[in-house]
Amino acid sequence: MNDHDDVAPDRAIGPDARTRLADGRTLLYYDDVAGADRSASDSRPLVALESEPELRYNALLGEWVIIAPHRQERTYLPPESECPLCPSRERATEIPASDYDVVVFENRFPSLVSGVAIDGPPDGTRRPGIGKCEVICFSSDHHATFAGLGAARLRTVSRALIDRTLELGTLPGVEYVLCFENRGEEIGVTLNHPHGQIYAYPFIPAKIDRTLSVAADHQARTGECLMCSLVARELADGDRLVAAVDEFVAFVPFAPRWPFEVHIVPTRHVTDVPALAEGSAVTMLELQARVLRAFDRLFPSPAPYIAGFIQAPVTDRREVAHLYAEVFTPRRAAGKLKYLAGSESLAGAVSNDVIPETAAEMLRQVLAE
Amino acid sequence: MNDHDDVAPDRAIGPDARTRLADGRTLLYYDDVAGADRSASDSRPLVALESEPELRYNALLGEWVIIAPHRQERTYLPPESECPLCPSRERATEIPASDYDVVVFENRFPSLVSGVAIDGPPDGTRRPGIGKCEVICFSSDHHATFAGLGAARLRTVSRALIDRTLELGTLPGVEYVLCFENRGEEIGVTLNHPHGQIYAYPFIPAKIDRTLSVAADHQARTGECLMCSLVARELADGDRLVAAVDEFVAFVPFAPRWPFEVHIVPTRHVTDVPALAEGSAVTMLELQARVLRAFDRLFPSPAPYIAGFIQAPVTDRREVAHLYAEVFTPRRAAGKLKYLAGSESLAGAVSNDVIPETAAEMLRQVLAE
Repeated sequence: MNDHDDVAPDRAIGPDARTRLADGRTLLYYDDVAGADRSASDSRPLVALESEPELRYNALLGEWVIIAPHRQERTYLPPESECPLCPSRERATEIPASDYDVVVFENRFPSLVSGVAIDGPPDGTRRPGIGKCEVICFSSDHHATFAGLGAARLRTVSRALIDRTLELGTLPGVEYVLCFENRGEEIGVTLNHPHGQIYAYPFIPAKIDRTLSVAADHQARTGECLMCSLVARELADGDRLVAAVDEFVAFVPFAPRWPFEVHIVPTRHVTDVPALAEGSAVTMLELQARVLRAFDRLFPSPAPYIAGFIQAPVTDRREVAHLYAEVFTPRRAAGKLKYLAGSESLAGAVSNDVIPETAAEMLRQVLAE
Repeated sequence: MNDHDDVAPDRAIGPDARTRLADGRTLLYYDDVAGADRSASDSRPLVALESEPELRYNALLGEWVIIAPHRQERTYLPPESECPLCPSRERATEIPASDYDVVVFENRFPSLVSGVAIDGPPDGTRRPGIGKCEVICFSSDHHATFAGLGAARLRTVSRALIDRTLELGTLPGVEYVLCFENRGEEIGVTLNHPHGQIYAYPFIPAKIDRTLSVAADHQARTGECLMCSLVARELADGDRLVAAVDEFVAFVPFAPRWPFEVHIVPTRHVTDVPALAEGSAVTMLELQARVLRAFDRLFPSPAPYIAGFIQAPVTDRREVAHLYAEVFTPRRAAGKLKYLAGSESLAGAVSNDVIPETAAEMLRQVLAE
């Protein structure tokens, strides 16, 4: 699974080809090996959907909420024979090519859209939902998994993530770029083809804002980066470590919100995905894939999970941000999920049923298998 | 359904009887009519479970997380014939009496426990999980619903909620009391008998803390209570109103996090459930039950929901708190739920697919039925 494929020589960040889908959305190809024919065009009679998401200010919580009603119409668990993320072979899909390595394209049912006016009404409680929501497909194989991708593909994925973080960060009004993957119907995935998502927000999302405030306080008080301090503590304690490789460490945090939660962190201070050297980005993704393979071995069936990169905002408080990947499964036991019910949803008080050191020990055991 | 039963004359807040279960936990009876025989004792050979929950400080988010591993063993979706919340008739359950109106008892699998030392280790990152987790059963009828309770029962429920808020607030170390109900397997309920929960936390939960900070800022800036301002705005706008009755208004908030979310709010400034006059508490619960009946009429099957009272802490910042009930269903369409996936869980950015004014209009329609 994790055999090191032949790795293509380094080449410039940026897509290998770009095209437009029938309704005008952009699609980008990132290839494992340069030179593939990406001239196929989208022949579908696709009408551009009207998408006018709105941001509304939640006054009680002091945060923006995205209202995106057109997403109610989004494709919902189609059978494999109608998968829109497979390549176009017998039938036309979202990807015109008959095969692909990695593609990124604008979501047909986005929560945030570019090209609308940036200024909202003057009362400051609502404004247009500008930004971008992209889909990233990791493989043309409907049954592939991120955990099973080889080094060559992970290098291509890392090129795409770096490119998208950089390019989306240049869009007017965009303040934060989040690259993430949801897997499993248990957590609400509506398409089973292996894919991630990239959101470019026109505000600093609430949880990110909170972590930046906390990190800024820590830095002001101690002169140190909070995550650098936490990494040092985890390396010293050792009982929550899951794996350590060149430049990266994977550990269950001291007070996780989820039964099996792992942070994958560069041991030196790195602010965001683009700040990683290309080789380092691949190492980080390989470690992430290894942790996800361990998740799948914890219980009899593959784990539903959420995984993403917590990185610095486009401009705000970059000096206190330290990149990490957060990967968790809400599964607490075979056939049982941890839910965010009354205590979590109403009050924000999380109760976790798995001792973090036990979770780390279980993960170390299956990681070694 | 909402017929006004005969209402018992006012009597003192506080349980009508109390007993101890076989493992030492306290159980309280609150009766619709005084004078019932509550002398039955628990005959089960029940061993006290070891519960030593721990609080750990999540340094990245600056909040406490409860680690409660003994909860992994909790009763999981038993058949009705083994329901632990039915009264004791052919078999002994958690409630010794052969019938009851409302009972409150300590959870056998609590996230927080009293009676353990309050002081934690000196480094400030972990401490014992002191507090209390109680279960409140609204009816001895396994198939009853909160939405279907009559006025006499709602009066008894309100007496119990007032009593528990007051008594739990006197426990050493308790800073916040949350009364809530989770309903539906879709949101993780493990017992189907109609019941709520009461949590007494030894800290201000993160979301509550956030709302208090935001309200304090608003008050400092404008001299006004934030919720009082929001109620005035909703009454003026009108398009998100769901219902208004004597002293209370129910509306979909301007920027809700959930597809169908309703806040039920006293129009005059009230800090917590005990500050309501007894008659007002019943009116508030009746309005909540009415909203929940509307939830059940939105789609072909009964709605999963979370409902609870956001009230002032025991001592902290009580002057900026304004009581409200938050009631929401995560169901966004027939057979489809809104999930908190990558954008919400990793970044805290919520995307809601239902326009709040549309949600309010749909609720007004089914409310009138």
